[in-house]
Amino acid sequence: MKIAFIGLGAMGGPMARNLVKAGHSLVAFDVVAAHMAALAEHGALTAASAREAVATAELVITMLPSSPHVKGVYLGADEALADGILAGVAAGVPLVDCSTIDPHTARAVAAAAAARGNPMADAPVSGGTGGAEAGTLTFMVGAATDLFEHIRPVLAAMGKNIVHCGAAGNGQVAKICNNLLLGISMIGVAEAMNLGVALGIDPSVLAGIINTSSGRCWSSDTYNPYPGVMPNVPAARGYSGGFATDLMLKDLGLAADAARQAKQPVVLGAAAQQLYQLWSARGAGGLDFSAIIDLYRQLPPPPGK
Amino acid sequence: MKIAFIGLGAMGGPMARNLVKAGHSLVAFDVVAAHMAALAEHGALTAASAREAVATAELVITMLPSSPHVKGVYLGADEALADGILAGVAAGVPLVDCSTIDPHTARAVAAAAAARGNPMADAPVSGGTGGAEAGTLTFMVGAATDLFEHIRPVLAAMGKNIVHCGAAGNGQVAKICNNLLLGISMIGVAEAMNLGVALGIDPSVLAGIINTSSGRCWSSDTYNPYPGVMPNVPAARGYSGGFATDLMLKDLGLAADAARQAKQPVVLGAAAQQLYQLWSARGAGGLDFSAIIDLYRQLPPPPGK
Amino acid sequence: MKIAFIGLGAMGGPMARNLVKAGHSLVAFDVVAAHMAALAEHGALTAASAREAVATAELVITMLPSSPHVKGVYLGADEALADGILAGVAAGVPLVDCSTIDPHTARAVAAAAAARGNPMADAPVSGGTGGAEAGTLTFMVGAATDLFEHIRPVLAAMGKNIVHCGAAGNGQVAKICNNLLLGISMIGVAEAMNLGVALGIDPSVLAGIINTSSGRCWSSDTYNPYPGVMPNVPAARGYSGGFATDLMLKDLGLAADAARQAKQPVVLGAAAQQLYQLWSARGAGGLDFSAIIDLYRQLPPPPGK
Amino acid sequence: MKIAFIGLGAMGGPMARNLVKAGHSLVAFDVVAAHMAALAEHGALTAASAREAVATAELVITMLPSSPHVKGVYLGADEALADGILAGVAAGVPLVDCSTIDPHTARAVAAAAAARGNPMADAPVSGGTGGAEAGTLTFMVGAATDLFEHIRPVLAAMGKNIVHCGAAGNGQVAKICNNLLLGISMIGVAEAMNLGVALGIDPSVLAGIINTSSGRCWSSDTYNPYPGVMPNVPAARGYSGGFATDLMLKDLGLAADAARQAKQPVVLGAAAQQLYQLWSARGAGGLDFSAIIDLYRQLPPPPGK
Repeated sequence: MKIAFIGLGAMGGPMARNLVKAGHSLVAFDVVAAHMAALAEHGALTAASAREAVATAELVITMLPSSPHVKGVYLGADEALADGILAGVAAGVPLVDCSTIDPHTARAVAAAAAARGNPMADAPVSGGTGGAEAGTLTFMVGAATDLFEHIRPVLAAMGKNIVHCGAAGNGQVAKICNNLLLGISMIGVAEAMNLGVALGIDPSVLAGIINTSSGRCWSSDTYNPYPGVMPNVPAARGYSGGFATDLMLKDLGLAADAARQAKQPVVLGAAAQQLYQLWSARGAGGLDFSAIIDLYRQLPPPPGK
Repeated sequence: MKIAFIGLGAMGGPMARNLVKAGHSLVAFDVVAAHMAALAEHGALTAASAREAVATAELVITMLPSSPHVKGVYLGADEALADGILAGVAAGVPLVDCSTIDPHTARAVAAAAAARGNPMADAPVSGGTGGAEAGTLTFMVGAATDLFEHIRPVLAAMGKNIVHCGAAGNGQVAKICNNLLLGISMIGVAEAMNLGVALGIDPSVLAGIINTSSGRCWSSDTYNPYPGVMPNVPAARGYSGGFATDLMLKDLGLAADAARQAKQPVVLGAAAQQLYQLWSARGAGGLDFSAIIDLYRQLPPPPGK
Repeated sequence: MKIAFIGLGAMGGPMARNLVKAGHSLVAFDVVAAHMAALAEHGALTAASAREAVATAELVITMLPSSPHVKGVYLGADEALADGILAGVAAGVPLVDCSTIDPHTARAVAAAAAARGNPMADAPVSGGTGGAEAGTLTFMVGAATDLFEHIRPVLAAMGKNIVHCGAAGNGQVAKICNNLLLGISMIGVAEAMNLGVALGIDPSVLAGIINTSSGRCWSSDTYNPYPGVMPNVPAARGYSGGFATDLMLKDLGLAADAARQAKQPVVLGAAAQQLYQLWSARGAGGLDFSAIIDLYRQLPPPPGK
Repeated sequence: MKIAFIGLGAMGGPMARNLVKAGHSLVAFDVVAAHMAALAEHGALTAASAREAVATAELVITMLPSSPHVKGVYLGADEALADGILAGVAAGVPLVDCSTIDPHTARAVAAAAAARGNPMADAPVSGGTGGAEAGTLTFMVGAATDLFEHIRPVLAAMGKNIVHCGAAGNGQVAKICNNLLLGISMIGVAEAMNLGVALGIDPSVLAGIINTSSGRCWSSDTYNPYPGVMPNVPAARGYSGGFATDLMLKDLGLAADAARQAKQPVVLGAAAQQLYQLWSARGAGGLDFSAIIDLYRQLPPPPGK
């Protein structure tokens, strides 16, 4: 299939490569020329603008950093449509935005696309840069059912779980709700593990009990933050790699914004957001989010106090 | 085995019955005569006091409501030993306390028992009254390894998971850490589910996605609080039965106390405790703790406002 | 002075009337025709658009609901300047925005104004509709010193405290920081008063002690939320009038957004925001924010529980 | 008056000295012999035990660290009365406990005293060691009115504000409620000041605005935590002296315990407690509690991150 791919950063780059590998014909665009050059080496064509990239596409995929970028790339600067994807793409061509943004914007852009005859899906991913490289991402897709079925084989070249979440915007809803819960659970595990160890239990014994009891969760049984409990997790390598605290902060910010618009309280979610913010402000924003467990560590008083 | 069993309430009663069914010879005591009479119908002997009950026992099991009760029953009134279990039991007889209490008290009583020659285990349970009736409780056992091996077959007549958590007190540590995390996770699920639905996603679709993603946890995949998502959970029957909010409050209170003694912060744990307290103060203390999701429901303003 | 006044709602209407009373010549605009008609009865001229209203003004004052409105009114739709104040006002004419918005937007609009030769101040107010009617508002002004001195006499016709907070944007900063603290303090007072009464102290005695001790604060000594402690406060009249919970929510939302942009944690601020959100979701959004004390009241269980 | 004074630590020592200076005849006891020796130099007699100290007293005053100490000193070891104050004091002699403890224990000890014919008051203080030295403490007194009038002149030798809070226990209630609010307010000020400065306002300007607006509170206008805003406060001397974070933690712990017993939520209070605990765990427990503002400071990432 002839696919326009816009946004070739840490996630979009490897995703686009996997599409090329799967035999698709890509026309790519990124504001960073080096990103385009890197992809061109794998056999993609490049374009001078997003609008140009989509001119002859049968499908458009975007992977962008934030809501304003998505608005700008689809609707054009000042939302005037002059230089955006919607101004350049043929009617009927499906659009898939893989960015993680707020559901409100996702729905507004999808409505603008629909008004011009382009069905649109939001399909945010989880799995990180490792999953993007390996083609094992999870896609949470908000789209009409026929559109979902149409794009599923393409997404399958980049991921292994392609989940239909309902109509446009619901992919974003699913992602931010999952990550809201993830951000809370990880801090819950951090508190429980550190409390247990402070009270004298062995961390691996405690994790083993939790993992077969009602406290069981992904943050404990798959991604435990306590060093030494599991191999091959960020806690086993000084919290490098993984899902950075500042990215968790971005997602919790999206959740908090969406909650405010929906007049829905998220008490623990907001507390979790502030704890990651505290931790980021102390210099840990680039570490994996499970490093939040170190915020709870008991340190000696500074010298002379 | 000749077992003294002290404390025949909603949990202790069915636990003792399962020991009788398993062929053990029980001498039981409870401050409520009717509880003793009910057990006597199943073939247990009864005694006039805890001290009398343990006089000829080969093993002592207690199931009591709180730390002061455990202190009083083992050490006697005013901790003067005069009328407590330790004053009446033969040296060498093992003691097993199945109450959920703070680890500090558990260790203090175990030390007093050891000083008199009685090895002691703390073995708090999870599984509720249903698990007590069915003999499917989980026991979290703090005890020396030989004591653990000695009592394991007896506990197995009352439960299906008998977990060794380390030395005396660690059963309590495991339980309160697990329940701390459980209390947090349930509110996290409540916030995520209610936010998702307010943003337009179907609750069963959202639960399905969470349950295969990084937000996965027992509170979502086994005990989901959103009505209609799962059958056979409290949410499917108006939050009756299950694990009452006020019992969750008791356990979070134990965790908060233990954390304070250990100088260990539990930020989300304390927030969860206060949210259950808010909810209990609005009249929901007797409902299953997953009813906390209703604290997050959007209600219409009162008439005239 | 010839003043253009844009935005004649619950706050802007009475503010504009006070300017007319003080002898200024007003040209006013509001999207609601009835608001313009009401002001015209007091002697103001009206205009067909914001742009037309400012055409011959010597000073422009705006009072609008939110950041997008301020952007739209000053910069025009799509920020294209075509139909905004900046496109219509003469160079050199000072601009004063009295809206409560985020500092980032306030500074961006002020920079756009400066680029066209118009000095601009942000001057959000406190004092509510009562203060707007009575001309006793407090203005928190972000502006260069000479601009501040120039507009001070005009603001003095609408308020009694005109405070210089530093350069453009700092009026907004002062207001959201003050209200962040106010939102926290009020809940602190609510918790302390309800706890004290639950523990058996008379609420007036407790308030008297707090008001002469280190817990002293405006929320306790001037606006006490406990009914019966003070006359002439919302607590004395069923929490009607005053500063609505949903307006406090708006300001805490601005604070949370500004904090996120500044990467600054606001842990209690976010918790306060969520508690007002919980309370608003239960139907209390239109009551004075001190009604939050009722979230903490102990209620009987519902019938049959 | 012939006064027995038990507990001569950092607070009790200078309080007892002020009584001697005022002409009272003291018999003192402390478990630390050096404390008794120091007071003896000022003219007090000393005793071999609390019970002996009170034998001929016309009034008993105690100043002890915690609830268990108060119970032990009044009721004797194991609450068996054998060696406590109540066993040694003459009937009718009034008792005044100046310790900060939980209201429940205060009332239980007062009831035990009343049962033996001794009227008892709880009279916790604020003002710190500086106030104890200078004789400028505030006493919050829970006592029957006639007892309050009887002891007021004696307390006046040690403090300048002697406040009647109602019946026995209410002195403790007043103190913990005030300090609950103080602990919350200080963090509120810390968040507001740090946010404002991060957004570009001068800290002294911001404090000035808050102190004349609705955010006004003792933590801002009398004890501002931002360095450079006020002289003669802990923030002006590296947070030395003042009221240690770990003492604030003790009082917030008492408030949390009392709230739990009263089934009363304290959401921000519990969050404040945890934030001070986080800060104490990072080594700041000995600094003045206003140092919590440094928890909110933005630090650079550690080297190599």
